[in-house]
Amino acid sequence: MNKIFFKDLEKYYDKEIEISGFVENIRNIKWVQFLVLRDSTDRVQVTIEKSEEKNKEMVELVNTLTVESTVKVTGTLKKNENVRLRGMEFIPTKIEVTSESDPELPINIHDKDAQLLDQRLDYRWLDLRNEYNFNIFKIQSYLVKVMREFMYSKDFTEIHTPKLIGAASESGSEVFEVKYFDRKAYLAQSPQFYKQMAIASGFDRVFEVAPVFRAENSNTSRHTTEFTGFDLEFAYIDSYEDVMDFEEELLTYALDKVNVKYGDLIKELYNKELIVPKNKFPRVKLADLYDILEEKYDYKVDEEEKNDLTTEGERLAYRYAMEEFNSEFIFVTDFPKDKRAFYHMRKNDVPQGYDLIYRGVEITTGAQREHRYDVLKKQALEKGLDKDIEFYLEFFKYGCPPHGGFGLGVDRLTMLILDISIKEAMMLFRGPNRLNP
Amino acid sequence: MNKIFFKDLEKYYDKEIEISGFVENIRNIKWVQFLVLRDSTDRVQVTIEKSEEKNKEMVELVNTLTVESTVKVTGTLKKNENVRLRGMEFIPTKIEVTSESDPELPINIHDKDAQLLDQRLDYRWLDLRNEYNFNIFKIQSYLVKVMREFMYSKDFTEIHTPKLIGAASESGSEVFEVKYFDRKAYLAQSPQFYKQMAIASGFDRVFEVAPVFRAENSNTSRHTTEFTGFDLEFAYIDSYEDVMDFEEELLTYALDKVNVKYGDLIKELYNKELIVPKNKFPRVKLADLYDILEEKYDYKVDEEEKNDLTTEGERLAYRYAMEEFNSEFIFVTDFPKDKRAFYHMRKNDVPQGYDLIYRGVEITTGAQREHRYDVLKKQALEKGLDKDIEFYLEFFKYGCPPHGGFGLGVDRLTMLILDISIKEAMMLFRGPNRLNP
Repeated sequence: MNKIFFKDLEKYYDKEIEISGFVENIRNIKWVQFLVLRDSTDRVQVTIEKSEEKNKEMVELVNTLTVESTVKVTGTLKKNENVRLRGMEFIPTKIEVTSESDPELPINIHDKDAQLLDQRLDYRWLDLRNEYNFNIFKIQSYLVKVMREFMYSKDFTEIHTPKLIGAASESGSEVFEVKYFDRKAYLAQSPQFYKQMAIASGFDRVFEVAPVFRAENSNTSRHTTEFTGFDLEFAYIDSYEDVMDFEEELLTYALDKVNVKYGDLIKELYNKELIVPKNKFPRVKLADLYDILEEKYDYKVDEEEKNDLTTEGERLAYRYAMEEFNSEFIFVTDFPKDKRAFYHMRKNDVPQGYDLIYRGVEITTGAQREHRYDVLKKQALEKGLDKDIEFYLEFFKYGCPPHGGFGLGVDRLTMLILDISIKEAMMLFRGPNRLNP
Repeated sequence: MNKIFFKDLEKYYDKEIEISGFVENIRNIKWVQFLVLRDSTDRVQVTIEKSEEKNKEMVELVNTLTVESTVKVTGTLKKNENVRLRGMEFIPTKIEVTSESDPELPINIHDKDAQLLDQRLDYRWLDLRNEYNFNIFKIQSYLVKVMREFMYSKDFTEIHTPKLIGAASESGSEVFEVKYFDRKAYLAQSPQFYKQMAIASGFDRVFEVAPVFRAENSNTSRHTTEFTGFDLEFAYIDSYEDVMDFEEELLTYALDKVNVKYGDLIKELYNKELIVPKNKFPRVKLADLYDILEEKYDYKVDEEEKNDLTTEGERLAYRYAMEEFNSEFIFVTDFPKDKRAFYHMRKNDVPQGYDLIYRGVEITTGAQREHRYDVLKKQALEKGLDKDIEFYLEFFKYGCPPHGGFGLGVDRLTMLILDISIKEAMMLFRGPNRLNP
């Protein structure tokens, strides 16, 4: 672990050190050779005077060096204000090629738009060397880190629940089937049932960050067959308002932290302002929202779509939230029960849950859960669910505190923060037509 | 989020507050009723004087109350040194039953050994209410938290790689097959290929905590078909010694942190001393180890098993490490190449990797990876691998720094720290015969 990160080079002026990185650029001119080396943190220039006898071997090596190879270079770092890159240059005494790149790169790393996105994804390990793509995942990693930080500060326990499940539970049609020895298993579409099991077990507050699987054969800009879910559940709530309050707090905390560390970079690379929420997110009932959208924007939703939020409805809800409340977020509540899962608690027949819209796209469905065995069973039967979820109903037979929670897609959140596509927001996108690399 | 955790009750003496929890115990005697309530942090006694007229309604409620129901209780917390449980009691003015437990519990929660483990697992959400089982996951959650903490402190980036893969790559026989629309996909047996891809992409240091899947039809005390892998990979190493050094440092850090917070509890509940390593872990070559074991313990390994570490060899390696080095850990190196993956780097035909044995069980295989395309391809072909791993070989065609890493099973590590079985160390165990609940 003695690799010197390039971001820290300033500490090593005039010392003999060893540096390592990718060769990003080679300029071979009359009297001198310049290499630009890159690591995950920064870049540095290596300068080789051709005329000096002691450099002969290095000069020859650089003559056949290919870009994107990796090298280990011994030498001394010098201040030099004439060097555009960081006002420093590395004067080498020895260069060792640690891996050689094929001279023909299949994609243009430095201009990501020189090829189609799907071509880029075919060569994702090269595509990610572009700083635009690379930083998406530095930011995403940090986003998840600070979200976790918040969860720990609120006494949540991180759990790991199985992705291999015995029954196609939530909705059979969108679940992947696995050959499990001489029987079938399925891939969990969410940790919903198991995080609720943890609540019934007495864990009070739990969360999980893990892959979830959706066998949706659709190729939209926001769908994927596998993504990283950030799921949580907590006990002893009074209503789903507690769940909304919590999500508001979590997102505000996380966006603030990301903004402090990456706000400038996000503006520079993705041309997007990261706005940290200042106020509570507006909350509106679905039916009221449609009335407002009709009145304000002349948007008339079709009668048969009125019981759910349409894509255009999401977009206009955002416009309304911005214009009226200067908020990029808006909670939509009071969906009709036929559009909500059977496990959402109902009051006067109204599901006690919400969708959260961020920048015009739904990022969360949250709710207070029905924790009473008899009521839950009735609601399940009403939706035609029975045998497959019997095991789940059992969780509520021996006492389970009132609770609620929600799930957030890490990739979709990244996509919206940076204003990029879902394919870009995943290190390795998975869709109906993409399982490689 | 205004739930008062029982661990914090001392702050609320003589104040009217609301408390919530599971009813762990009910004693209904002549003049008084006692409830013991439990939440995820502690227990508290609720005392109801039967003679007082104002308590009439509560007394009736408690008469029909079942254990393991959940309640919300309003009242005042009083100091009372006569109360065995924490010297305090809660005097209620109102009790509300928030969920009712069936009076017949299918397992004995308070005596886990009153039934077979498999029966307990059938009712895992009740089984976990036992503090022995419950605390396994408080400790595991904390273990992963501090391991992550260490990774962040070393500038690692946490990544999320797909579990759905296009080819049965590492070894076809132990991989689960998934029906993926009109073709087949497979479940990743480890993030090995993708964490190496991240290295080739220039991430320098990456880790992932995620489920891994193994289609092994074996029912041993340490195998499972799905578990949580803690996988990492880092670039610019000089040899696999760097990888061993790092693992040593990571485990020492994590065990120290776990010991500070949970050392006493682990001793009390699991009757196991958590020993924080004081020195470097001993390192021994496989062939030398067998010589030592024969000399010291008269253990003669069969000739045909000599090229790998046997279960008995692991056990005796531990004994040797304890007796000779007072170490619970021992690295075993220099395995023959036919027993190591094709992607381990070789020097003089010897794979540059190791197994780490902790308390007599293998917990890690680590190695420096072969990062040179031509050499890697040759090693793959030698093992008869070709088409399925072509996509992986491509990662190394355009430059990739020298690197290494390892994977640790979170569940197996938990199992060994607490001296419990793998079935107990997973919130929901998965084996060839278990997919439920």
